[in-house]
Amino acid sequence: MTPTVEDLIEAVVAVDAGAADTARKRHAILAKPPGSLGRLEDLGVQLAAIAGACPPPVPSAPVVVVAAADHGVHAQGVSDWPQAVTTAMVSAIAAGRAAVNAIAGAVGARVVAVDVGTLTTSALPDGVRDERVRAGSADLAVEPAMSLDECRAAVAAGARVAAALVDGGADLLVTGEVGIANTTASACLLAAFTGADPAGVTGKGANLDHSRTAHKVDVVRTGLARHGADRDPLGTLASLGGLEHAALVGVMLAGAAARVPVVVDGVVTCAAALAAVALCPELAGYLIPGHESAEPGGRTLPDRLNEMALLDLRLRLGEGTGALLAVPLVRAAARVLGEMATLDEVTG
Amino acid sequence: MTPTVEDLIEAVVAVDAGAADTARKRHAILAKPPGSLGRLEDLGVQLAAIAGACPPPVPSAPVVVVAAADHGVHAQGVSDWPQAVTTAMVSAIAAGRAAVNAIAGAVGARVVAVDVGTLTTSALPDGVRDERVRAGSADLAVEPAMSLDECRAAVAAGARVAAALVDGGADLLVTGEVGIANTTASACLLAAFTGADPAGVTGKGANLDHSRTAHKVDVVRTGLARHGADRDPLGTLASLGGLEHAALVGVMLAGAAARVPVVVDGVVTCAAALAAVALCPELAGYLIPGHESAEPGGRTLPDRLNEMALLDLRLRLGEGTGALLAVPLVRAAARVLGEMATLDEVTG
Repeated sequence: MTPTVEDLIEAVVAVDAGAADTARKRHAILAKPPGSLGRLEDLGVQLAAIAGACPPPVPSAPVVVVAAADHGVHAQGVSDWPQAVTTAMVSAIAAGRAAVNAIAGAVGARVVAVDVGTLTTSALPDGVRDERVRAGSADLAVEPAMSLDECRAAVAAGARVAAALVDGGADLLVTGEVGIANTTASACLLAAFTGADPAGVTGKGANLDHSRTAHKVDVVRTGLARHGADRDPLGTLASLGGLEHAALVGVMLAGAAARVPVVVDGVVTCAAALAAVALCPELAGYLIPGHESAEPGGRTLPDRLNEMALLDLRLRLGEGTGALLAVPLVRAAARVLGEMATLDEVTG
Repeated sequence: MTPTVEDLIEAVVAVDAGAADTARKRHAILAKPPGSLGRLEDLGVQLAAIAGACPPPVPSAPVVVVAAADHGVHAQGVSDWPQAVTTAMVSAIAAGRAAVNAIAGAVGARVVAVDVGTLTTSALPDGVRDERVRAGSADLAVEPAMSLDECRAAVAAGARVAAALVDGGADLLVTGEVGIANTTASACLLAAFTGADPAGVTGKGANLDHSRTAHKVDVVRTGLARHGADRDPLGTLASLGGLEHAALVGVMLAGAAARVPVVVDGVVTCAAALAAVALCPELAGYLIPGHESAEPGGRTLPDRLNEMALLDLRLRLGEGTGALLAVPLVRAAARVLGEMATLDEVTG
């Protein structure tokens, strides 16, 4: 039986402060000047806290979950790209020829694409998980993007996929997505969950020009005004988010419930993460901001977590590409704690 | 026969602007918004220019060369750590238990340690290349750190090691080093090659306190004053550098001569890179600034190359640790150019 959102939230326990402390103390005695591994040390402490053990396990089977969906708000002219590109990109991922495949190959991660609501009604390409909840969301500028039940179903779909992957050995989850117009829905979520002005969290997406980006900001304002002051996290996610955002909330909750670290990518996955943390504050400790998107909302999740993203390579593609590039850093941080000698061992 | 410094310089040809242009054009038609892979696109262009081919090869056998040496300037009280730690760290690396080993393991790189001039006169641990030129450099504050012949010998040693590695299949060279007090020599080189004030390029190294760091700045000033106005690159390297700096210059020259990319680490390897670029301006195109050291001189090489380092994780350990973390980015940048479909292929 698929757990409900409430079951998933209930299953997430706080990360282990004792293991974090053990990791901090170990860093202080390893064969290096204390602190000289910089943010890799902080990352190691977080991994210990997540695992509840020091040294933490070294991830050997990372998986990037690419959640795909279409967006009714595309009708507002917020993207230069036709919606058919969403399905085309899912096919490219299934064929191993998208950016996410190339980068996953470079870091030794597996790619799992999940259709939670593209517009296609055809059979999906081989290898794509079929978790379609509805054929694209409604136009968030004029009505809720999905019903609360649909939103719950998409969260459950993501959680089901993640739990199955963890059961199969996945020990690091990386979040990715495709969905033409999904930076518009993301901007709505970022604004709703942080209180930021839409102009500060809305970007050019797939290369909109200046005037079209200004129009996109207006559409985000319209969506927020239509949504009103409701601050219930699930209701906000359903009203303003996309099906892939909801699925990624499920991935994050199921990952955290299994004490598996979850690496967050660009603005779309950050928007999902803000929704997930609003639903379940304990989840925050399991999230690793992998890459700061070049989109203006890219800093929202790191700011919320009082962290910096690990990487800043000015990526703004999504698909999980930025988060994947942080996977080797996670492995390195864990290996440092598990494999290095102490200074006493070296000089003694 | 080992090539001379002049032979090595002669063997480095300019990177291939035509291949770079082909890579730029390919990036513009791949299945993503143009530019959306940010600095990974620039890196791919550089790799194509280095290889003279687009797509560039994906590095499958990266090697970090860790050059080790001791420094006479230690007598000036510029480090809290005894010189014996240099040799101890070489042993730890040989035993696979230093930070560089843990991180190399995380990114699939091989570690090769080379003693070009530690104080030890004993046999070296198994696996450490013996290229000892002299037992530590002289005190650069009072006399040239080494003779011109010794400097040439150390450059040749590094080049010999790198050439042998490339002959054995190494297709990406990563620079690393150990040497107690070598950030003092590095600060001298950084100041000499950039004209920067010593206070701007001298840091706390292995955790010196504030007053000791101020003393270290004074020692750097003394060394620069003793050296005088001679701007001959090899003479400056011999006068103010360490044997490991010279060896790394050889690694960089031999790597570039073989059209193999060379990833630069923290301030010590940046200092070597500035010397190498002063000797051979064409070399610059082969250098990839991997990580911006948290030491104040960390930005000198990226500034000289008009680039940013790929990573900024506040590392200040050396050994090649920061540069190693950039290896997966190099692989990813190459794979993007070689494996991604074009937008036309995806949507056509």
